[in-house]
Amino acid sequence: MDSETTLKQEVAWASHLSLQACLLPAPKGTSCANYARCVNQILLGVNNMQLWLRIPLLKTDDDSMDINSNSLVDSWELWNSFRMLCEHHSQLSIALDVLSSLPSANSLGRWFGESVRAAIIDTDSFLTNARGYPCLSKRHQKLITEFFNHSVQIVISGKPVHGLPKGSADLAANNNDSNFDDWVLQKVKDCVGISCEGFEEENKALFTAIEASHYKDKLASFSNPANKGVHRHPLRSYLDYVGYLYQRMDPLPEQERFELGYRDFLQSPLQPLMDNLEAQTYETFEKDAVKYIQYQRAICKALQDRVPDGKALMITTVLMVVGAGRGPLVRASLQAAEETGRKLKIYAVEKNPNAVVTLHSLVKLEGWENIVTIVSSDMRYWDAPEKADILVSELLGSFGDNELSPECLDGAQRFLKDDGISIPSSYTSFIQPITASKLYNDVKSHKDVVHFETAYVVKLHNVARLAPSQPVFTFTHPNRSTNKSNQRYMKLQFDIPSETGSSMVHGFAGYFDAKLYKDIHLGIEPTTATPNMFSWFSIFFPLRTPVVVHPGSSLEVHFWRCCGPAKVWYEWCITSPSPSSIQNSNGRSYWVGL
Amino acid sequence: MDSETTLKQEVAWASHLSLQACLLPAPKGTSCANYARCVNQILLGVNNMQLWLRIPLLKTDDDSMDINSNSLVDSWELWNSFRMLCEHHSQLSIALDVLSSLPSANSLGRWFGESVRAAIIDTDSFLTNARGYPCLSKRHQKLITEFFNHSVQIVISGKPVHGLPKGSADLAANNNDSNFDDWVLQKVKDCVGISCEGFEEENKALFTAIEASHYKDKLASFSNPANKGVHRHPLRSYLDYVGYLYQRMDPLPEQERFELGYRDFLQSPLQPLMDNLEAQTYETFEKDAVKYIQYQRAICKALQDRVPDGKALMITTVLMVVGAGRGPLVRASLQAAEETGRKLKIYAVEKNPNAVVTLHSLVKLEGWENIVTIVSSDMRYWDAPEKADILVSELLGSFGDNELSPECLDGAQRFLKDDGISIPSSYTSFIQPITASKLYNDVKSHKDVVHFETAYVVKLHNVARLAPSQPVFTFTHPNRSTNKSNQRYMKLQFDIPSETGSSMVHGFAGYFDAKLYKDIHLGIEPTTATPNMFSWFSIFFPLRTPVVVHPGSSLEVHFWRCCGPAKVWYEWCITSPSPSSIQNSNGRSYWVGL
Repeated sequence: MDSETTLKQEVAWASHLSLQACLLPAPKGTSCANYARCVNQILLGVNNMQLWLRIPLLKTDDDSMDINSNSLVDSWELWNSFRMLCEHHSQLSIALDVLSSLPSANSLGRWFGESVRAAIIDTDSFLTNARGYPCLSKRHQKLITEFFNHSVQIVISGKPVHGLPKGSADLAANNNDSNFDDWVLQKVKDCVGISCEGFEEENKALFTAIEASHYKDKLASFSNPANKGVHRHPLRSYLDYVGYLYQRMDPLPEQERFELGYRDFLQSPLQPLMDNLEAQTYETFEKDAVKYIQYQRAICKALQDRVPDGKALMITTVLMVVGAGRGPLVRASLQAAEETGRKLKIYAVEKNPNAVVTLHSLVKLEGWENIVTIVSSDMRYWDAPEKADILVSELLGSFGDNELSPECLDGAQRFLKDDGISIPSSYTSFIQPITASKLYNDVKSHKDVVHFETAYVVKLHNVARLAPSQPVFTFTHPNRSTNKSNQRYMKLQFDIPSETGSSMVHGFAGYFDAKLYKDIHLGIEPTTATPNMFSWFSIFFPLRTPVVVHPGSSLEVHFWRCCGPAKVWYEWCITSPSPSSIQNSNGRSYWVGL
Repeated sequence: MDSETTLKQEVAWASHLSLQACLLPAPKGTSCANYARCVNQILLGVNNMQLWLRIPLLKTDDDSMDINSNSLVDSWELWNSFRMLCEHHSQLSIALDVLSSLPSANSLGRWFGESVRAAIIDTDSFLTNARGYPCLSKRHQKLITEFFNHSVQIVISGKPVHGLPKGSADLAANNNDSNFDDWVLQKVKDCVGISCEGFEEENKALFTAIEASHYKDKLASFSNPANKGVHRHPLRSYLDYVGYLYQRMDPLPEQERFELGYRDFLQSPLQPLMDNLEAQTYETFEKDAVKYIQYQRAICKALQDRVPDGKALMITTVLMVVGAGRGPLVRASLQAAEETGRKLKIYAVEKNPNAVVTLHSLVKLEGWENIVTIVSSDMRYWDAPEKADILVSELLGSFGDNELSPECLDGAQRFLKDDGISIPSSYTSFIQPITASKLYNDVKSHKDVVHFETAYVVKLHNVARLAPSQPVFTFTHPNRSTNKSNQRYMKLQFDIPSETGSSMVHGFAGYFDAKLYKDIHLGIEPTTATPNMFSWFSIFFPLRTPVVVHPGSSLEVHFWRCCGPAKVWYEWCITSPSPSSIQNSNGRSYWVGL
């Protein structure tokens, strides 16, 4: 009871000082319910401050271990118990204590789906390089780089244990470290609050913090010997080394930089069939050169297959772009015709009357009037004057069929010749289980069922991908089968590698891969993703109740694509390790309008 | 897809006919996700009709069984998956198919916490008695009786397979069974709707239903040979036997009959400290003769211990009734004095000024003015003119301390002599895990967190008690320890017998047992409950997320009693088999005002 009173007083003081976060000592042993109860009470009362729970980065890989053993084998379990007891509170985060030996890569990966805010590296975990300076093992370096990538603050802690070689002291004397000290002090104030159980005493003046991505310039200036100073911080050489690791990182590719603001930001998927897209949306997607190059390559191949070289001048191929938008696929088709020397007649069918206006301007501007006929109509109801050799469309969502490409192309294939070609010729959706505490908390913050039963478009970053993705639904065009239903049901089983340890599944990342024509494909499934294409982020299907999967048990998932008279929707659930409820029954929360 | 369409059509037809329920075929095998998805969709659309899922009453007790085996070993698991997939929908219930061999008693017990609406007994499950009539095994008889007790409708199904002895046909011919047939038809219409997958065909005209507790008279009249008729229903002899089992049951004791309306009905616990009780409430509790007899016995013993026989006429014992209400404990004290021949001076302290009015009348009416002093004050703040030998109180709630007896008596013990006696001298709360789908659904129907974080007073009936109860918090009076805190923390581990199989824990039943004085106790803990006492129902602590406990894993539960400046509250959680959130943190949903 005394400890509880003290903890509450100290946190109240930290909160009074408007600190951003407060570091809490690691729970002891495996039973942390009473500590969690106390922290949970604090969390419900605290305003904006975060509580960072110290967790040692520890997992013994002893599979033969008695499962009922009370000894701590995986500190992730400790964190998981604690955060579940605290109801996944969004202000409860993690400060990882990085030790001198590291668990397996898979096991480490889990933490990148969790709310890790700081990594505390004790000076004991540093090695010594040939010149006597502190350095880290290759695996530690890789981990630190990943921390930087995920905006995890690095904290150096402990006593300086690396004797510096002669001469470096003089160098140090030349540095103006009062600036540096101020900055460290500021960082300590900003980021790492007070501590409990004597942590403050122990670490007084030994606190060094670098926040990734923000302080590069500052670091550079501190590393500059031109800054003269009196005191050299006793942990300066450790900081220098961590700074060096940061500076050594490759700069982010331009596209990644552009997408920084979208990381882990949930968006509602577009409904281009039900809603008309805005000009800005067309503008953005039309910039995706890679996508149109793939289409052009596919159209080239199709044209060549359709019309032999010898007959190139005699035969005019009828190509229909269904869902022409403002014309990028019309352009790609014309370029393919030019590239292959085939003659083309194009119908550009578009149901958005606003886009049709732009389309008319484009055709006039480019002088395509003789080749391109613009049709302002919904492809599902258009009464075509002739049949097409090639049907070109790009109606794909992040999950392939989720923008109702199947339903649209079922309508359009009425005017495709019996031996005609559809580009794309097929597409498949994929899912994989992920840890994504940030996304889960964002969904949960709405405090309703609807948001848990919605799929989101999101640039996944702060996630752990727990098992390879698996295919879900495939649609082939034209659909010549007698069963024309676009309803689908798939049961999947994911096996999470046992060396990962237990993991939290917050939901499923979804992707697609489309076969445009023969070997030309397009997609975002991570292992086969088309490089440098930016039209699609992943999709995220959340679980209302996140589920912990223990090593040895597999995750059984069910996905349905359901079709009603006016809408299409997905339902999903898990049945193993334990049954969930079926989410989005009858499309009550999330659906795509026909 | 055809099956799905047909099922939906048939259920729509049943709903159109305003049937009360519709019987659904049992899921096949262990994977029922697609069937459940379909039923779940129906449940969200159907109005008042119930869906009764047929479940074979089946559990093999093979502990050595491979846990990963796909064969069905426990049909409860099947039901559990199905209902979890359907999000515990309150209109999804069970029709148990009772087979000729029965699982263990513990395993059967689980079903009495579930929403079983009908038990279907095939004629094949009947034995034949010496006279050639159908009868059931002892264990079946016991089970059927339990079904009656839980208002589970008995349905007899199948072909008549018991050849009746000669002569009974004549008897049958004397019965007027057209009445009976009408009644059966009515029952079929009322209760058991259409069926799917040819069930109707198979069972046409073989449907016989008895609803427990409602149709006793009707049954009696049908059994009466005076009712003449033409046709004897081919299953009549089976029905007669089931009717006989019903008639053979002991009538409910008066108290149980009185409490029928309270069964499984959630009530908010009283807050007699914060709120003043109403006259009607006093009236009810004062009728509990058993309770006051126990108090009188305890007071007798205390008086005898306090004053030896030889000094009975010389010494006047000062007895204070704290929380005197309208006076029943004053009366019990006076009767104890008379019984033991001890001289008594009584202070009756009561904080409810309305009850004090009645108390004054009582004292005047009974002529107790010389012995009884009435004090209109809160015992915590009363400035007593002298110290008491004996402090008598009854401030107990269903969970013992939940009406703040500890806080009140801590205040009152200021005016108890150092060697004085408190009646009660101690009390302990108990909990046990239960299956209680009805209670869970009632709590869930409020669709908020508050109701899941509230404890309820409830007459438990439709529940399965999964493990023996265990003590939680004990309070002793007077409290002479240096640590006067009434905060408590208890971690409990429940082991559910493995022969029970997997079970669903919807929450915890809570009880108390109070030691009044020496061996005189009072309580509602089931194994030691004081007979025929009706002042307390059990308490129920729900779990926000009910948890399935599999054989071999134990249930670890944490309970806290927390005290703030103005209120006292409980928090609770589980940490095994998997951690839950901590419920009612900071008493945000449920608390008792000081």
